[in-house]
Amino acid sequence: MIRLRTPYLLYLGDAQLPTDAKTACGLRDWCASDVVGEWSLASSPLSIGVPRYSPEEAAARGAGSLVIGIASVGGALPTSWMPDLLRALAAGLDIVSGMHTRLTSFPELVEAAARHGVSLHDVRHSDRRFPAATGRRRTGLRVATVGTDCALGKKYTALALTRALTARGANATFRATGQTGIMIAGEGIAIDAVVADFIAGAAETLSPDNAPDHWDVIEGQGSLFHPAYAGVTLGLLHGSQPDAFVLCHDPSRHTIEMYPDAVIPSLADAIAQYTTAARVTNRAAHCVGVSVNSSSLTDDAWAEYAQHHAAALGVPVCDPMRGGVAPIAEALLRLGVGGRSPGATDGSPPA
Amino acid sequence: MIRLRTPYLLYLGDAQLPTDAKTACGLRDWCASDVVGEWSLASSPLSIGVPRYSPEEAAARGAGSLVIGIASVGGALPTSWMPDLLRALAAGLDIVSGMHTRLTSFPELVEAAARHGVSLHDVRHSDRRFPAATGRRRTGLRVATVGTDCALGKKYTALALTRALTARGANATFRATGQTGIMIAGEGIAIDAVVADFIAGAAETLSPDNAPDHWDVIEGQGSLFHPAYAGVTLGLLHGSQPDAFVLCHDPSRHTIEMYPDAVIPSLADAIAQYTTAARVTNRAAHCVGVSVNSSSLTDDAWAEYAQHHAAALGVPVCDPMRGGVAPIAEALLRLGVGGRSPGATDGSPPA
Repeated sequence: MIRLRTPYLLYLGDAQLPTDAKTACGLRDWCASDVVGEWSLASSPLSIGVPRYSPEEAAARGAGSLVIGIASVGGALPTSWMPDLLRALAAGLDIVSGMHTRLTSFPELVEAAARHGVSLHDVRHSDRRFPAATGRRRTGLRVATVGTDCALGKKYTALALTRALTARGANATFRATGQTGIMIAGEGIAIDAVVADFIAGAAETLSPDNAPDHWDVIEGQGSLFHPAYAGVTLGLLHGSQPDAFVLCHDPSRHTIEMYPDAVIPSLADAIAQYTTAARVTNRAAHCVGVSVNSSSLTDDAWAEYAQHHAAALGVPVCDPMRGGVAPIAEALLRLGVGGRSPGATDGSPPA
Repeated sequence: MIRLRTPYLLYLGDAQLPTDAKTACGLRDWCASDVVGEWSLASSPLSIGVPRYSPEEAAARGAGSLVIGIASVGGALPTSWMPDLLRALAAGLDIVSGMHTRLTSFPELVEAAARHGVSLHDVRHSDRRFPAATGRRRTGLRVATVGTDCALGKKYTALALTRALTARGANATFRATGQTGIMIAGEGIAIDAVVADFIAGAAETLSPDNAPDHWDVIEGQGSLFHPAYAGVTLGLLHGSQPDAFVLCHDPSRHTIEMYPDAVIPSLADAIAQYTTAARVTNRAAHCVGVSVNSSSLTDDAWAEYAQHHAAALGVPVCDPMRGGVAPIAEALLRLGVGGRSPGATDGSPPA
């Protein structure tokens, strides 16, 4: 498991537009208490609205890592960033990157990190080895977010759900499986970077035994219906052994993004397929809600959509950005009170 | 894709029992024309019934590789084998290993291979990078073997089917996805060693565009119902885009081997789940036969089992070791004649 040293100084490099700084904005929004401030090249006009500190100032305020908070063109590391990165290492900060190009592929960074006794974290990659999954049931409660496609709100839904559970006094932990999630949580496993044989084993490692009333909220990846990434999705689902799952969907999509021949099934069919798949490792697994990215719908259309599908599917239908996920969190808390054991033994979902 | 230099000298090390030499026996049985002979330590009483040649003699007879044909305890490399391995490299042979411990982790082997201009192949591992799957349909015909569990005949069935197709004049290629299969085929991809994000992409690479009447017979891995390995199974299935699949089963198993809580579904249910999964990338995909390891059944029980399930499922039910897979091969050849296009476009299986 990757573990990062918080709090963070967010690095914006030479970003020109707020959309370039999606990672930094995600960290600001979801782990504000772990963000000391921002830093950028003098040529960048951008601020995400947090204090501007140099690496030395941030270190003096307790920062543990400089996090590269922007996407660079092609995932490479611009040479213009190098002086700032070396300066951060010299100030005693680790560097955290989600870029394709590994920080560790730059000898000058490796050398400087070693000299200053700090670390380089490439959270998109995984060098750690995991055991094969055992299938052994673990203590504690688990909910996974799954999707009809990639990039439609699985991370956001998991974060919103963790917040909603915590706000209701529940003991809940967001479990990150992708690079931005790992930066937000400060730890996690980039599940798509694991060797294929060990996907489910890595997922078992990610959410270990816990207190009986503790919820792990596991960030899903990919989609069962995705021609390229369904293997990751299924292995993660099996290793997670979720008691419940939330299906994430974007009603404006009818085929998988970039794969026009891959048709997205109906919500009912998608729920049925995820239920069948999840029951390989947890016979109590069932859908506890649908999380919709409704940005393509008018207010009226969204209200009608949510009402129609909630009635048809028998579960709450929410948009975390438009009303929140409280009904799903409350359904989980009802489940946690006493719903698990029967389903776990007789194969039928808790009432 | 791994490509090996045939023919092979099979190395038996210090094996005492024929069961230790499963890999060597598989190569003798499935690619006899690629086997020059065998070699072992003087302390080994074992022969698998092929000529005994030293590495130098084998090289003189045209051998390209020494293949480690036995399983060592714990997957490690016994030091007693080292003189033979160095001798093989000096004789100009590559070395091929399916062991957990990499040949390349021994500096003396790496140094000797470099000095003699030969190669070390660790077929259990994969250092090659693959692209993400595109989902693009490829020309040619494909059949995949899939299973209700691991280790119940998917490789054997694929090899038998390739032989049966070839014997009927068809153009067919066995596509190896595991270590022994790769040794038999002389090439392939150890699909479970690929980084998770690229399982389906690797599978696309494994069976590229081909002639319209050519069959790729793709060795399956794992099982959709396996708590540890289903991710590999699904990614391989999606990238393979099979027109048809053969379900492999062992009727003596009711739960996944070593995972007593994971129940194996009925044949009909297993076929339905594999069909749904395969149609993500090929809407014509359908089950064309069931291949059974019937060793637990008497002749009478097997006859009744095969008849009952063939009638219930509407496809031939065969045991490659007990009567062969001719009916499945013939079903594939009928499919190849004109069955594909309709299903590929309208979503229903060819008749």
